[in-house]
Amino acid sequence: MRVAVVGATGAVGSTILGVMRERSFAADEVVPFASERSAGRRIDWGETELEVRALGEEAIQGFDLALFSAGSHTSEEWVPRFAAAGAVAVDNSSFWRMSDDVPLVVSEVNPGALDGHKGIVANPNCSTMQMVVALKPILDAAGIERLVVSTYQSVSGTGQRAVEELHDQAQAVIEAKELPAPAVYPHQIAFNALPQVETFKDGDDYTTEERKMMAETRKILGSDELGISATCVRIPVYTGHSESVNVQTRDPLSPEECRKLLSAAPGIRVIDDPGNGLYPTAVDAAGQDDVLVGRIRRDPSHDRCLNLWVVGDNLRKGAATNAVQVAELLKVRGLLRRAPAN
Amino acid sequence: MRVAVVGATGAVGSTILGVMRERSFAADEVVPFASERSAGRRIDWGETELEVRALGEEAIQGFDLALFSAGSHTSEEWVPRFAAAGAVAVDNSSFWRMSDDVPLVVSEVNPGALDGHKGIVANPNCSTMQMVVALKPILDAAGIERLVVSTYQSVSGTGQRAVEELHDQAQAVIEAKELPAPAVYPHQIAFNALPQVETFKDGDDYTTEERKMMAETRKILGSDELGISATCVRIPVYTGHSESVNVQTRDPLSPEECRKLLSAAPGIRVIDDPGNGLYPTAVDAAGQDDVLVGRIRRDPSHDRCLNLWVVGDNLRKGAATNAVQVAELLKVRGLLRRAPAN
Repeated sequence: MRVAVVGATGAVGSTILGVMRERSFAADEVVPFASERSAGRRIDWGETELEVRALGEEAIQGFDLALFSAGSHTSEEWVPRFAAAGAVAVDNSSFWRMSDDVPLVVSEVNPGALDGHKGIVANPNCSTMQMVVALKPILDAAGIERLVVSTYQSVSGTGQRAVEELHDQAQAVIEAKELPAPAVYPHQIAFNALPQVETFKDGDDYTTEERKMMAETRKILGSDELGISATCVRIPVYTGHSESVNVQTRDPLSPEECRKLLSAAPGIRVIDDPGNGLYPTAVDAAGQDDVLVGRIRRDPSHDRCLNLWVVGDNLRKGAATNAVQVAELLKVRGLLRRAPAN
Repeated sequence: MRVAVVGATGAVGSTILGVMRERSFAADEVVPFASERSAGRRIDWGETELEVRALGEEAIQGFDLALFSAGSHTSEEWVPRFAAAGAVAVDNSSFWRMSDDVPLVVSEVNPGALDGHKGIVANPNCSTMQMVVALKPILDAAGIERLVVSTYQSVSGTGQRAVEELHDQAQAVIEAKELPAPAVYPHQIAFNALPQVETFKDGDDYTTEERKMMAETRKILGSDELGISATCVRIPVYTGHSESVNVQTRDPLSPEECRKLLSAAPGIRVIDDPGNGLYPTAVDAAGQDDVLVGRIRRDPSHDRCLNLWVVGDNLRKGAATNAVQVAELLKVRGLLRRAPAN
């Protein structure tokens, strides 16, 4: 079993390596790939080190599995090449997610979608991922007709430069110095809230992030009729996305029943005793694999609507952990071996 | 014309004094009141100074107007006493807001509610205030059936201690020191998002802030049937509340029509060219009296729903500015003079 981790020096890539070690992922060899610039760098791997390699036709031969988190451009080119060389690629970029013959898989939600994959499996967007984990038990029990979602997203999903930008701006505010000009985000992110996550493409009045949330949620939950409205907002949090989710079910579902369902579901921890200050926050979620859910309550404006507060670590369950969980499923279910294309 | 400003040394009280001067509020005498502890303190007032007084039966005689922002306890006791002494009290606390014989007034939205007041006028909650300013033109043009709101609220509404708590925690994070224990908020607020604004009372699963938003919005817009779901969230922003508002209208309303309506309405500035990075943020709203609205767009899940991003300065339009505007209306419309009670 040979595993490639592509984009291994990035925030998600390094988390993938960390999660593999935490979960004792059984691999005979793990090879980290990154840009030419990082090739030759050595990465800690328990008692030994791994040497970072650059992508190339020779270098990508002989892998069973390739976990990608290196951006859409790299995935567009190299995911099919790994697949053609016989590996199954689990891709964290958005490039392949909406392709008809690429399953978009959340391990607790739609593992069956892995059947019959064609060498490429997509890992959903982070804000989508944590939401569908929380929604799946509700969908199964009562059906879901409509979602109105507002997000509170951390900066680490954007990458290391965004984390530094938040830090540098916050420091300038704290020290009452002039703020460095925003470079990663279009506006000041420290002590502010930006109703823009990713970009507005081709005159669209929804961002690409909002479009992803809406389209990917439908694909993962297997429901074309599901109505979704998303407002994605970046806030000054380092790690952990929070979401205010208004769920309109098909059948009535009480908050008590919902709490019971979610408490019994895999990958979810219900923290919901608000009178005693118990509800999930981003700081609590950071470093955890579970999706945390609280503030479960009846929406007083609609007798089939519930409100939920859903929090997850965007680098872990929102990206790295799910990729590794999907890899584990592929292995356990014998879905890794395949003949090379042609 | 003698004006009392009660709670004059607090965040909102001092903003009331500032707004009065900016707007050249015509008063013969302005008297700041605060707690016994602050009595005798001198406050800048243009080329002169005002001396802070303590509340007392003698001290409150002879006022035409009393602008209150000193908390519910003080308002409960002293608002009726000022009113009994012949003043009209404009109260920023929540204590009198839902009383049947107390008008709850936003200057641009329901100034007519001032008619026949009985000496007490209430100033709405900050998060409600900015939202109803944005909603009023929509209500008039197309009717409103339902609102699903998620807020992104700054700490200054909680008061100066909360501002310091955010500062101190952020500084500790930036300097990689141990965080001081939270004292004002139940959890870390720096680089976090707390789905709790104010308190959970008597086992209610909505906070008092959420209840206020829901009840006050109905009272101000004069609609008992209006459905509202509110999720109020505190984020690490110093000043300026942001709101993600999903509006279900009675009649169809296009985003273009909505933009046109709001652009023509008083107290609103539409900033809505997201492809060019133009949308409101809390940092931009701070220090401004207008409510800023952007991200106006069709909710793809409902053909009579629009999404809006509404941002306002919680200390100014959300509190002080509206109180002064209400005072101006009372004066202009001859609603100040009244016989003392009995």
